[in-house]
Amino acid sequence: MTAILVLHGPNLNLLGEREPEIYGHTTLAELDARLIEAGQALGLEVRTAQSNQEGVLIDHLQEARQWAAGVLLNAGGYTHTSIALRDCITAIRLPVVEVHLSNIFAREEFRRVSLISPVCWGTISGFGEQSYFLGLAALAHRLQ
Amino acid sequence: MTAILVLHGPNLNLLGEREPEIYGHTTLAELDARLIEAGQALGLEVRTAQSNQEGVLIDHLQEARQWAAGVLLNAGGYTHTSIALRDCITAIRLPVVEVHLSNIFAREEFRRVSLISPVCWGTISGFGEQSYFLGLAALAHRLQ
Amino acid sequence: MTAILVLHGPNLNLLGEREPEIYGHTTLAELDARLIEAGQALGLEVRTAQSNQEGVLIDHLQEARQWAAGVLLNAGGYTHTSIALRDCITAIRLPVVEVHLSNIFAREEFRRVSLISPVCWGTISGFGEQSYFLGLAALAHRLQ
Amino acid sequence: MTAILVLHGPNLNLLGEREPEIYGHTTLAELDARLIEAGQALGLEVRTAQSNQEGVLIDHLQEARQWAAGVLLNAGGYTHTSIALRDCITAIRLPVVEVHLSNIFAREEFRRVSLISPVCWGTISGFGEQSYFLGLAALAHRLQ
Amino acid sequence: MTAILVLHGPNLNLLGEREPEIYGHTTLAELDARLIEAGQALGLEVRTAQSNQEGVLIDHLQEARQWAAGVLLNAGGYTHTSIALRDCITAIRLPVVEVHLSNIFAREEFRRVSLISPVCWGTISGFGEQSYFLGLAALAHRLQ
Amino acid sequence: MTAILVLHGPNLNLLGEREPEIYGHTTLAELDARLIEAGQALGLEVRTAQSNQEGVLIDHLQEARQWAAGVLLNAGGYTHTSIALRDCITAIRLPVVEVHLSNIFAREEFRRVSLISPVCWGTISGFGEQSYFLGLAALAHRLQ
Amino acid sequence: MTAILVLHGPNLNLLGEREPEIYGHTTLAELDARLIEAGQALGLEVRTAQSNQEGVLIDHLQEARQWAAGVLLNAGGYTHTSIALRDCITAIRLPVVEVHLSNIFAREEFRRVSLISPVCWGTISGFGEQSYFLGLAALAHRLQ
Amino acid sequence: MTAILVLHGPNLNLLGEREPEIYGHTTLAELDARLIEAGQALGLEVRTAQSNQEGVLIDHLQEARQWAAGVLLNAGGYTHTSIALRDCITAIRLPVVEVHLSNIFAREEFRRVSLISPVCWGTISGFGEQSYFLGLAALAHRLQ
Amino acid sequence: MTAILVLHGPNLNLLGEREPEIYGHTTLAELDARLIEAGQALGLEVRTAQSNQEGVLIDHLQEARQWAAGVLLNAGGYTHTSIALRDCITAIRLPVVEVHLSNIFAREEFRRVSLISPVCWGTISGFGEQSYFLGLAALAHRLQ
Amino acid sequence: MTAILVLHGPNLNLLGEREPEIYGHTTLAELDARLIEAGQALGLEVRTAQSNQEGVLIDHLQEARQWAAGVLLNAGGYTHTSIALRDCITAIRLPVVEVHLSNIFAREEFRRVSLISPVCWGTISGFGEQSYFLGLAALAHRLQ
Amino acid sequence: MTAILVLHGPNLNLLGEREPEIYGHTTLAELDARLIEAGQALGLEVRTAQSNQEGVLIDHLQEARQWAAGVLLNAGGYTHTSIALRDCITAIRLPVVEVHLSNIFAREEFRRVSLISPVCWGTISGFGEQSYFLGLAALAHRLQ
Amino acid sequence: MTAILVLHGPNLNLLGEREPEIYGHTTLAELDARLIEAGQALGLEVRTAQSNQEGVLIDHLQEARQWAAGVLLNAGGYTHTSIALRDCITAIRLPVVEVHLSNIFAREEFRRVSLISPVCWGTISGFGEQSYFLGLAALAHRLQ
Repeated sequence: MTAILVLHGPNLNLLGEREPEIYGHTTLAELDARLIEAGQALGLEVRTAQSNQEGVLIDHLQEARQWAAGVLLNAGGYTHTSIALRDCITAIRLPVVEVHLSNIFAREEFRRVSLISPVCWGTISGFGEQSYFLGLAALAHRLQ
Repeated sequence: MTAILVLHGPNLNLLGEREPEIYGHTTLAELDARLIEAGQALGLEVRTAQSNQEGVLIDHLQEARQWAAGVLLNAGGYTHTSIALRDCITAIRLPVVEVHLSNIFAREEFRRVSLISPVCWGTISGFGEQSYFLGLAALAHRLQ
Repeated sequence: MTAILVLHGPNLNLLGEREPEIYGHTTLAELDARLIEAGQALGLEVRTAQSNQEGVLIDHLQEARQWAAGVLLNAGGYTHTSIALRDCITAIRLPVVEVHLSNIFAREEFRRVSLISPVCWGTISGFGEQSYFLGLAALAHRLQ
Repeated sequence: MTAILVLHGPNLNLLGEREPEIYGHTTLAELDARLIEAGQALGLEVRTAQSNQEGVLIDHLQEARQWAAGVLLNAGGYTHTSIALRDCITAIRLPVVEVHLSNIFAREEFRRVSLISPVCWGTISGFGEQSYFLGLAALAHRLQ
Repeated sequence: MTAILVLHGPNLNLLGEREPEIYGHTTLAELDARLIEAGQALGLEVRTAQSNQEGVLIDHLQEARQWAAGVLLNAGGYTHTSIALRDCITAIRLPVVEVHLSNIFAREEFRRVSLISPVCWGTISGFGEQSYFLGLAALAHRLQ
Repeated sequence: MTAILVLHGPNLNLLGEREPEIYGHTTLAELDARLIEAGQALGLEVRTAQSNQEGVLIDHLQEARQWAAGVLLNAGGYTHTSIALRDCITAIRLPVVEVHLSNIFAREEFRRVSLISPVCWGTISGFGEQSYFLGLAALAHRLQ
Repeated sequence: MTAILVLHGPNLNLLGEREPEIYGHTTLAELDARLIEAGQALGLEVRTAQSNQEGVLIDHLQEARQWAAGVLLNAGGYTHTSIALRDCITAIRLPVVEVHLSNIFAREEFRRVSLISPVCWGTISGFGEQSYFLGLAALAHRLQ
Repeated sequence: MTAILVLHGPNLNLLGEREPEIYGHTTLAELDARLIEAGQALGLEVRTAQSNQEGVLIDHLQEARQWAAGVLLNAGGYTHTSIALRDCITAIRLPVVEVHLSNIFAREEFRRVSLISPVCWGTISGFGEQSYFLGLAALAHRLQ
Repeated sequence: MTAILVLHGPNLNLLGEREPEIYGHTTLAELDARLIEAGQALGLEVRTAQSNQEGVLIDHLQEARQWAAGVLLNAGGYTHTSIALRDCITAIRLPVVEVHLSNIFAREEFRRVSLISPVCWGTISGFGEQSYFLGLAALAHRLQ
Repeated sequence: MTAILVLHGPNLNLLGEREPEIYGHTTLAELDARLIEAGQALGLEVRTAQSNQEGVLIDHLQEARQWAAGVLLNAGGYTHTSIALRDCITAIRLPVVEVHLSNIFAREEFRRVSLISPVCWGTISGFGEQSYFLGLAALAHRLQ
Repeated sequence: MTAILVLHGPNLNLLGEREPEIYGHTTLAELDARLIEAGQALGLEVRTAQSNQEGVLIDHLQEARQWAAGVLLNAGGYTHTSIALRDCITAIRLPVVEVHLSNIFAREEFRRVSLISPVCWGTISGFGEQSYFLGLAALAHRLQ
Repeated sequence: MTAILVLHGPNLNLLGEREPEIYGHTTLAELDARLIEAGQALGLEVRTAQSNQEGVLIDHLQEARQWAAGVLLNAGGYTHTSIALRDCITAIRLPVVEVHLSNIFAREEFRRVSLISPVCWGTISGFGEQSYFLGLAALAHRLQ
């Protein structure tokens, strides 16, 4: 079965607790469970990971080269500041879908520029947790 | 049946002919037919329109207030320059999904800022014609 | 009787319906009727027009050269993006009063620069529909 | 009778003498007299003041809280540089109409940004001394 | 006979009337007649069109794909603001010569950047109506 | 007893009346009284002054050279615009503590740059009137 | 007893050794001991932590939600670059006091913008290790 | 005898005391005395004034219209921030020589732009008190 | 016979050898020969010169005042950096046509601004060596 | 024997696998072996380390204070974003040579600014793995 | 006798011919003669030179180290673009007075920044040829 | 024997005399002698040249196409301003190593951007005269 990495960046472990008016009430564990289930329905094995550390996210992406056919990445705050993450996405040569829960273009100025967008396959932003499921569908469509 | 407007902006009538290495070989008529079909599967009545004119796009959006429950909008080149279009999206108070065939963040500098993103519900960019189908799925999910 | 063109730009046809907390509850038809009435009291024949299209607004302005002694212009979203409109105002050599319902300086950054202000006679911004009546008074005073 | 402060900023005491090709031939005393007269016709008691000092203008505005129902303010050169004046306008919570004799948008680049516009009720610019009379009419309309 | 589209943008219909000290005294009809004549001398069939509307200009360019071997384009004020026009030029894959009557680099700051120059074959600016005839010569030379 | 100048800038005389949701309900007189009292407890003689005028604030600072060992300065709106005040702080060679009631970094963009910070000993911002008492403590600690 | 987290960012473990002419001669261990002692005098239980890693600092802040009533944060070099840290401060909804040993406004240009200031309660900068003690006093005052 | 105003701006009353390594050891009184003497040798009656207040400087310049044939102006910190002062220089239509003791171009970035230079006759910067005497010579040469 | 200077700037002596995919295979000697020939056909005596030195180009332009009626100038890399060259063009008061082989607007960002365009009669860019012949035609037309 | 730290930043562990057309075919292990060997020939004991984590790189640099006489640092993507790393280099007071495999000035705009260059001894960029050997030679020359 | 170099930059050889409405009617030879004469009166031996070439100006400055005690430099257009000239001024360690005939601050934006001002002793701008004589006086005063 | 051009730009002829605290005490003649000697040891024939003139540097580079296999270039102040030099490096298609004595990134802001870096093979900056020897080693390694 084709395998997919779903990788969550900093502060996403607080999902469901942190500013629910922006990010919703689902916890990360619940979201991961639903993504695994949705993956199965699409013929994809979904593995998930989260870290608050830029470098650990890079480690996860590098390791995914060994086993994954694609990546769903919510890089959180590192989206806007990490050239190292961008370089890693380029290096691993896997299709990476960038997802965001909130509409990053409707928030502070500094959130409107994503350093990783130019090296991702595509971007999905603003649909709440639905952003992840749309991204999963995109990968499933491509990897069939 | 819930109705949806799919609105295509300038030069999208050339789809399938214009720079196929970027935009693919499907013509706009074919794409529209598939979107209507996909809409039916999701319980949505999809109506489509295209114009090269900023003001006509605004007219379509304003009229959609009367009959549509949501909009899928690919504003093409007006994405980056039209405050009038942005004001219209705000005014009609319908959920609007912004879609782009190409990854606008991986192209010229001036394509990286979308004036309409901040007033759309969400943005999907880079997945080729798949961007439209993902956007349709997002609207279907919300309007159920 | 001296004739005046009152020209409304994009989305102003939604007046009274669109974001009434910003733009008020008067419809465009009502506003036009009051402007015609107020014009009569000032000895001015007021003719009104609205379009969502940049080029049609230019057409109206060009035609006004034939019959109007002045223009009251609310260019809406084109205020901030249209060099073509600006060129047209310069070309027709009529006194043009720029009006805005809302205080454009108290809103988003991109609304603070008007491309047409430098070629208009003057600007009135922020007084709701009263902005139009003040502009009419200014033209009446000048054309006496 | 409702009272109004008309407050003139730096160099406006030279009105009628200073660059008459831009600012006209009326002196400040003459203008003030006409404004008082026009106020009476509108049922407003107009009191006027002028200072070349930023801080004295602030003093005048603060004192107006005690007796005035609105303010007509031509802040002259401080329009573009005074955050202190802006803070004062916010603090006194009176409707303030910003007026300018010349079209500030048609002059040097640094005159195109007004620091006080965002906290004023509205702005009138470019109509010569008529700018004041239009502003008076706006206040009269609001305070009735 | 090889056919060429000469396309004039907004306000150029006022040629000969509008600011003759900048744009000269020839009317657009006269200019078009001379261009047709000059074209014949060069073995080119010249067809001309003008519109104040961005989208109609795009329509003309798209249609030219069917019959023209090259385009002479004076996009007027849209030169500096229209990404949609730029996309259209890229899409039609015809050689487009950008022409301007006045020296756009010697005027206001905002006229110094042309969004369409990078996708045109070349640019000719500042020679009055002669700019058009030089552009015609360039196309004739290339299409021989 | 070591003497300290507490200097308040423009609009701070409105303290307690002006926007209490931002600046609190304590009046300036009350604040000054508490600062004098707190100073005595710390072995400092506190003298206070307020002015809406940039130049008068400079006068106060210059005079403080004769009698004060340090300054607590809330320059209000002049914080962001006054090079003259900055030069004065450099000139008098006393330790100056910059204080702000509100968190200036959480407000408008133009409030985020302080021209005086680089020449002050340190900055305390955001703690309401507590900012003053912390600044007093800092001076007391240094001057012991 | 109310508990407080004092969190030190990158390179602060070198305190007392690193550039003592800027940062002083106290080691981090000594500073922590004094802060714990000062906390006790104020009725606060102070716990301290330091890390050179952005993500570990985020971990500490997230955990503090379980046990702390407030945070004293010197984010060092991450102050100017970490959106992830900023998001974390927003997420944990504790009062955070930003402290800096040196006057960050008097140093290099890139140190003048703090990404975390806008989401902290307040900022204290420039008083050497005294900055921490003032921040502790501020928290103590608020949490009483 | 032709009269000249020598006008000193903020903090220049501290001359000789303030940062003598930059501004020298001569006091303002001594400098004024020497300028009066030097003026006499050149057939000029020199009158001097100093103020820390922007508005008072404007008052002095406005009054000089009545009696002076030229002005020597060291606007100090207001050089870089005062549009009101600039407007005044334009208004009084006297030749104004801008002088600076220090080389303002060799100091902080914000001192490199003078708002008044474009409306002065000329600028002399960097020669210490000699800057004033050179300016006096320039005025003497012109007014002969 | 009317004389014309054709002046080539830095690196144009390498024409035909340097990056032929951009600049073509014609050598400078061949181009000069053809320009002389084309000039004769138009009744113009063409004299040519080339230098890699900014100052020598200025010398050539200054000397041309004595004998030439117009100039065709390809300033190469100095186009974007030389204010001295610009001043020279202004000083000599001859009509100067700016030509470029490549489309300078389609290359690096720093090539898009020409310092000399605003003081030239007109600009021709992008037509390969044809740019020179069009420029010659423009001069011939004007000098007849 | 004098000891040297060679420190590799994020994604350099992929060397030889990642984009070999830019970074070459040598693996990091091979490069490290060659650097150790080359060090021995120069009388230097070379120890190497790599991490994808900003904070771990800081840890390595801090520890190097105890045993190393110099550092060869390829900070990868952190070169352009890490103030914390810069502060660390300043703090440890060892000579640090910045090296890059690729010519960072010939790539994306955001790679052209290095935050660490100003605090390094020198920079070597663009020579592939040879950059490291040149840097080693530089350190050997200095430490003899 | 103390010797002084008066060095004129590009296009100043056209003095008296070039734009006399800006630069006056005196030729360079006349100006040089008067400067030599004025130098003698001040006890200075004045030697003059002019070049249109940046590098030759540098040569003159370097040679002046052997014989001159000071320099009067009008660098013309190189003022705003030459870092090489700036480096040379720093290198020769002579007092250099920067002079300009016109008020460079009252002209185009790009003329307002002088790259050489920060390394000159002082600047004199706007007094026509009098600028040179004032500069000579400044040098004479210093070198006595 | 493979030949190499070592080319020194403006003011480098003053080496050893000019600011020795930055550039060291070695004269250019001494440096050249050592480079020739070092070249011989590496099997390279080193020829050296220096000029203060941008155009002469270009001439040297162009001639090197005939005889050299590589270039070592210290372009001095032209590094940051010369597009003509950059074009020349591109044109000659030789490997060019950019060297700088001082660390250009640790100096003034305007020295941090090199216009020639993007077209050189690599850059070595900050190692004093050692920068040249490292560059020579790089060329030797490549040309073997």
